[in-house]
Amino acid sequence: MLAPRLRLTSAGGGPIVRVFDANWMQIEEYLSRDDRIAVPTGSTEQHGYLSLGTDAILAERVAVEAAGPLGVPVLPVLPFGMAPYFAAFPGSMSLRITTYIEVLRDLLDGLAGQGFRRIAIVNGHGGNSPVTGFIREWICQPRPERVQVLFHSWYNAPQTAAAASQFDPDQMHGGWVENFPWTRVAGAEMPAGSRPVIPREQFGLLDAAQVRAAAPDGVMGGAYARPDEDMKVVWDAGVAEVRALLQNGWVR
Amino acid sequence: MLAPRLRLTSAGGGPIVRVFDANWMQIEEYLSRDDRIAVPTGSTEQHGYLSLGTDAILAERVAVEAAGPLGVPVLPVLPFGMAPYFAAFPGSMSLRITTYIEVLRDLLDGLAGQGFRRIAIVNGHGGNSPVTGFIREWICQPRPERVQVLFHSWYNAPQTAAAASQFDPDQMHGGWVENFPWTRVAGAEMPAGSRPVIPREQFGLLDAAQVRAAAPDGVMGGAYARPDEDMKVVWDAGVAEVRALLQNGWVR
Amino acid sequence: MLAPRLRLTSAGGGPIVRVFDANWMQIEEYLSRDDRIAVPTGSTEQHGYLSLGTDAILAERVAVEAAGPLGVPVLPVLPFGMAPYFAAFPGSMSLRITTYIEVLRDLLDGLAGQGFRRIAIVNGHGGNSPVTGFIREWICQPRPERVQVLFHSWYNAPQTAAAASQFDPDQMHGGWVENFPWTRVAGAEMPAGSRPVIPREQFGLLDAAQVRAAAPDGVMGGAYARPDEDMKVVWDAGVAEVRALLQNGWVR
Amino acid sequence: MLAPRLRLTSAGGGPIVRVFDANWMQIEEYLSRDDRIAVPTGSTEQHGYLSLGTDAILAERVAVEAAGPLGVPVLPVLPFGMAPYFAAFPGSMSLRITTYIEVLRDLLDGLAGQGFRRIAIVNGHGGNSPVTGFIREWICQPRPERVQVLFHSWYNAPQTAAAASQFDPDQMHGGWVENFPWTRVAGAEMPAGSRPVIPREQFGLLDAAQVRAAAPDGVMGGAYARPDEDMKVVWDAGVAEVRALLQNGWVR
Amino acid sequence: MLAPRLRLTSAGGGPIVRVFDANWMQIEEYLSRDDRIAVPTGSTEQHGYLSLGTDAILAERVAVEAAGPLGVPVLPVLPFGMAPYFAAFPGSMSLRITTYIEVLRDLLDGLAGQGFRRIAIVNGHGGNSPVTGFIREWICQPRPERVQVLFHSWYNAPQTAAAASQFDPDQMHGGWVENFPWTRVAGAEMPAGSRPVIPREQFGLLDAAQVRAAAPDGVMGGAYARPDEDMKVVWDAGVAEVRALLQNGWVR
Amino acid sequence: MLAPRLRLTSAGGGPIVRVFDANWMQIEEYLSRDDRIAVPTGSTEQHGYLSLGTDAILAERVAVEAAGPLGVPVLPVLPFGMAPYFAAFPGSMSLRITTYIEVLRDLLDGLAGQGFRRIAIVNGHGGNSPVTGFIREWICQPRPERVQVLFHSWYNAPQTAAAASQFDPDQMHGGWVENFPWTRVAGAEMPAGSRPVIPREQFGLLDAAQVRAAAPDGVMGGAYARPDEDMKVVWDAGVAEVRALLQNGWVR
Repeated sequence: MLAPRLRLTSAGGGPIVRVFDANWMQIEEYLSRDDRIAVPTGSTEQHGYLSLGTDAILAERVAVEAAGPLGVPVLPVLPFGMAPYFAAFPGSMSLRITTYIEVLRDLLDGLAGQGFRRIAIVNGHGGNSPVTGFIREWICQPRPERVQVLFHSWYNAPQTAAAASQFDPDQMHGGWVENFPWTRVAGAEMPAGSRPVIPREQFGLLDAAQVRAAAPDGVMGGAYARPDEDMKVVWDAGVAEVRALLQNGWVR
Repeated sequence: MLAPRLRLTSAGGGPIVRVFDANWMQIEEYLSRDDRIAVPTGSTEQHGYLSLGTDAILAERVAVEAAGPLGVPVLPVLPFGMAPYFAAFPGSMSLRITTYIEVLRDLLDGLAGQGFRRIAIVNGHGGNSPVTGFIREWICQPRPERVQVLFHSWYNAPQTAAAASQFDPDQMHGGWVENFPWTRVAGAEMPAGSRPVIPREQFGLLDAAQVRAAAPDGVMGGAYARPDEDMKVVWDAGVAEVRALLQNGWVR
Repeated sequence: MLAPRLRLTSAGGGPIVRVFDANWMQIEEYLSRDDRIAVPTGSTEQHGYLSLGTDAILAERVAVEAAGPLGVPVLPVLPFGMAPYFAAFPGSMSLRITTYIEVLRDLLDGLAGQGFRRIAIVNGHGGNSPVTGFIREWICQPRPERVQVLFHSWYNAPQTAAAASQFDPDQMHGGWVENFPWTRVAGAEMPAGSRPVIPREQFGLLDAAQVRAAAPDGVMGGAYARPDEDMKVVWDAGVAEVRALLQNGWVR
Repeated sequence: MLAPRLRLTSAGGGPIVRVFDANWMQIEEYLSRDDRIAVPTGSTEQHGYLSLGTDAILAERVAVEAAGPLGVPVLPVLPFGMAPYFAAFPGSMSLRITTYIEVLRDLLDGLAGQGFRRIAIVNGHGGNSPVTGFIREWICQPRPERVQVLFHSWYNAPQTAAAASQFDPDQMHGGWVENFPWTRVAGAEMPAGSRPVIPREQFGLLDAAQVRAAAPDGVMGGAYARPDEDMKVVWDAGVAEVRALLQNGWVR
Repeated sequence: MLAPRLRLTSAGGGPIVRVFDANWMQIEEYLSRDDRIAVPTGSTEQHGYLSLGTDAILAERVAVEAAGPLGVPVLPVLPFGMAPYFAAFPGSMSLRITTYIEVLRDLLDGLAGQGFRRIAIVNGHGGNSPVTGFIREWICQPRPERVQVLFHSWYNAPQTAAAASQFDPDQMHGGWVENFPWTRVAGAEMPAGSRPVIPREQFGLLDAAQVRAAAPDGVMGGAYARPDEDMKVVWDAGVAEVRALLQNGWVR
Repeated sequence: MLAPRLRLTSAGGGPIVRVFDANWMQIEEYLSRDDRIAVPTGSTEQHGYLSLGTDAILAERVAVEAAGPLGVPVLPVLPFGMAPYFAAFPGSMSLRITTYIEVLRDLLDGLAGQGFRRIAIVNGHGGNSPVTGFIREWICQPRPERVQVLFHSWYNAPQTAAAASQFDPDQMHGGWVENFPWTRVAGAEMPAGSRPVIPREQFGLLDAAQVRAAAPDGVMGGAYARPDEDMKVVWDAGVAEVRALLQNGWVR
């Protein structure tokens, strides 16, 4: 009958990190010795001259780079998030909060049902953070075994924010702080200079048409770009902070 | 002030296809001359020895290859689908149908609101097809402008199914018909031979534990693999059929 | 005190089939020796010159005739289904898919709670079939005892479809294949001849107004009628196929 | 082409009453001259020795007899209602209130969309009456044209209740007041005598198991039966009261 | 460490009644010896010249006065209820019935989870009564321990209604029967005389604009006011009836 | 006919502030000259030795004191919020986030429908803040007139937090920073000293039982009390900051 010859690491001998680079037998083997998983959450939304996928690309990449050396698997990024305020910029998608909650519920229920006990949501989009209200509720529901769920917005976590702020405190949506080699798109040339920052309090009161009027190119303030060596400092801080979280961010 | 120098095609001069390879200005420009978009839908679920992302990988790839020459943009694949029957295979995720409907509603509403009028859902997972019940309902809702929505399961569309059946009529989940170079995973060696086919009617009555018992390695029947040249025939048929749909699948 | 003299069969000695022809004591007695039930699902929607209740009438009748000799009880038909595309034809009703799912959930939960373990949904309306997405999910939910749920669209099941196709392959909505003595209405005279068939792919893209424009009298193609002796052949095949399902359609 | 020879009344010359006895063309013709419709709502639930369909059978029948002479169409009865307290009696079904509301919403939206402006819900089950909370909300929603919705529980409307009370004030669920020739089932023999009445306040606090314990045969009090001539008096009052409602129950 | 010196009654030695006048330790102590709680439900809606909070003020006050001598705690009033028909009167709020059900579900689940077993909802607004449909369902759900839930509309309970009717049978919304010293507002002078009563059947068919047209000052009929000594008789009856319910309204 | 003699201010000549101190005519008059309203949101949950209503009491009071001189009306506080983590402390109530969203939706829809255009939610409970995700969505929905919605957590707004931090940086739930004369309860004596602060990151991972174990008396850290003169400084800052928001917190 079946004589599967599975090797539970990748062909190169290193651990498999992306769930999409594994089959179920490899995940089952992993679960026999660990119970952590990373769940990147992003958004498909305007980022000025940068990719519409910026938040998703960064969340998935930072999770994969952080989890790699630890051998913690990473789900594919949830590419759609909550961004109703960008609806007037074509290509921006948004899930209603009631939808988003149910997606997270299904993912958490599924992971808990398969034996994951420490789930790190590595979030790349500020508009997704209200889902913490649901996660808090989910954690408190009766459950045969305790499951911990971290929600970590990698880009403004303390170490990463500090790494960025040393270069420039103005770090708004679509600006330099999201401008990595892997978020730039072909065929788009970034302007030089910077945009005035839109105050957060004001932004929260604007509807989609007003947001577009206030940020005509989608950048909500700050410089458009910084040198790649600066960006590497920010990125490395982000990866390190996610990795530390996956290692030590849990309650015993 | 702003002097953006956008080129509306990619650096190489070809059209941009993945929405994640574009910024909003490029999508806006596209919408001034076309109103089609492809939305790949997949699943994260066991596929025997193959990648847990098989359905998502294939749906996105077939959409991108088909849409490329046409310059029709392709959203990132929705990586999670409806697969409750695979819950006993670790790494398999599933959205409840009520969740899935709301995700699709939000995506369709968002696309319609931005001016897309012909939406092709390129589906890679059989378990997702009941969402057509919702799509039919969505199409019939009052709306200022008519929006067409196609739901195309690429792998069993007539031409593609015919291309596969010429090689072997046994084509079940996880078997040769999903075994492409881009769905194999490192560190897993496929057994030789084939599995007996589980009849569809019977499968529909099994719960998650019973499904695992009936398909111990996750493959639901048929040969594990076929030569790559056969697979290329199937793939080319799939790409061609999606492309024809994007071109001619609409009502005038 | 109470001295009920129940006879657990009908006055004529035959088994009671319709749940509405029974009281709860008779159902309780039945459950002590069997665990099957038939749940007919129909629709209230235009069928051209035929009754607005065609799908409901046929589903209930075929279930009752099939279940009769077996003594399996039949719930009253759920007369409303999913038919948003017929909204422009007066008298057509439609439940949203989210509503329909909850109705089915409640019925299945209720039946399972009372001890039914093999539930056959005998469906008379194609638009209802996406509910299988929910049924699949329901079957996989944790439950103290396994419950099987079949969803059988009687009119296009293999044997019945074959019986009809021997007469004429054109068998669309509202046409001859639904024209039984018990679906004709008083005061309506059917035209002679036939209507051109509307291709299914095209139909799926039309909204309610377009559907009415494409099928002005509601018939979506094929002949309006066939001789009663032909219809009897189709009907007998349908009854036999449902009966076989109730007997042998289950997994052990 | 099409030369339909419709007659807009039944073959016998009288008006068509049941929607299931009509096709869409006949309903369309009706809507050109009237805007009323009757929607019977019942329940599938234990009624002691009587049919599990008692509430549905009576609601539909009283609506049809009342509407007949007026030519107002009657939808098929919604056979499932809210009866969670009878779950311990096999054959009793129950929709959750959240489900029931959505079913009613869909029916009312559908009827309003097709031009019905005066909708009379003829209700046969007390447990359904909380849906009036939703109906009140529905009436107050913005709508291009005003739509009136009556909710009439035929069995305890003033005239009908008075007709029954002249015979016996004890008229509880499953007792004589529901015992008509058309709610009795074959194979069941009713005991003589009567059951003590369960006080309503107390009943409202009992769960399903307690309800069965309190009403072992399902009858909640009063005599099991009365002479058919008494029942005819009650019935005639019920029919007359529904008819008066259909004629004069509307606001101008 | 902690040395809390709690006294489990109020400073004055009497029992604490309002939950807001207690801390959790006092409620915990209470639960060690009793399992009752009162939950007042009101509405924020027009009451003619009276306070927009009339229903909430009265429900909370009658509950507190009734529960005081018994030492049964009283939750803060739920100030918003179902009143869609008053939307045209500024300051009137309304929850949809689907929202209201979920609020009640959460409160009941929370109370049951903490050990309350006899919950008395003291309701001050007629429009809230359809929630009994949900409460009936909630009571019948499986639950480790039985929980009783009473829904008592204090103002039209038998004794209270009788006390009011001895003065005047015309007792409609916004009229004398709700005009207590604690529902009058500063700066508003009540007209003398009375308003004609709007028949209930007619009222139920009106939308929000029609309701305002039918009751221009919001009073739906009857005298505007009665002497305070009459009102005291009504009030005392209301308090006594709620108290009797809290004491004896339960099933053993 | 009617000759109402309304004075649109209170008897004392000052503006009416609480909606419950007004009738609908007074609110209608107010809307003819202003479009602001304050909506306090609280929670019913353990606060150590302090009132279970602490968050609701403070939110309503700070709103009323702030709005008073401006004449902006204040709705009654929504006394229930999201606090699943305190479920193990008796008397704590919690709405699920899906419920809370619908309550807010109904309130915002109602206020917008009546002409309010600037709505300030004055929040007293940290657990409620995820509702901002919904508010952001609500603001972006199509609407005939623009409506602004502020969500202001008064206790940790910049000025108020600064006023408190000058006394002591340790300001956790249930501690001195919530200990005002109007949140203390009779019969409870506060311990002296302080509790060690539970780190926020850790707290977010705990379920209800673990929270109670980590904070045995419900206080999550910091001193139990401070002198009333210090508390007055904090309070005055809170009132001033809410007032400034009501005056200047809007976008033009």
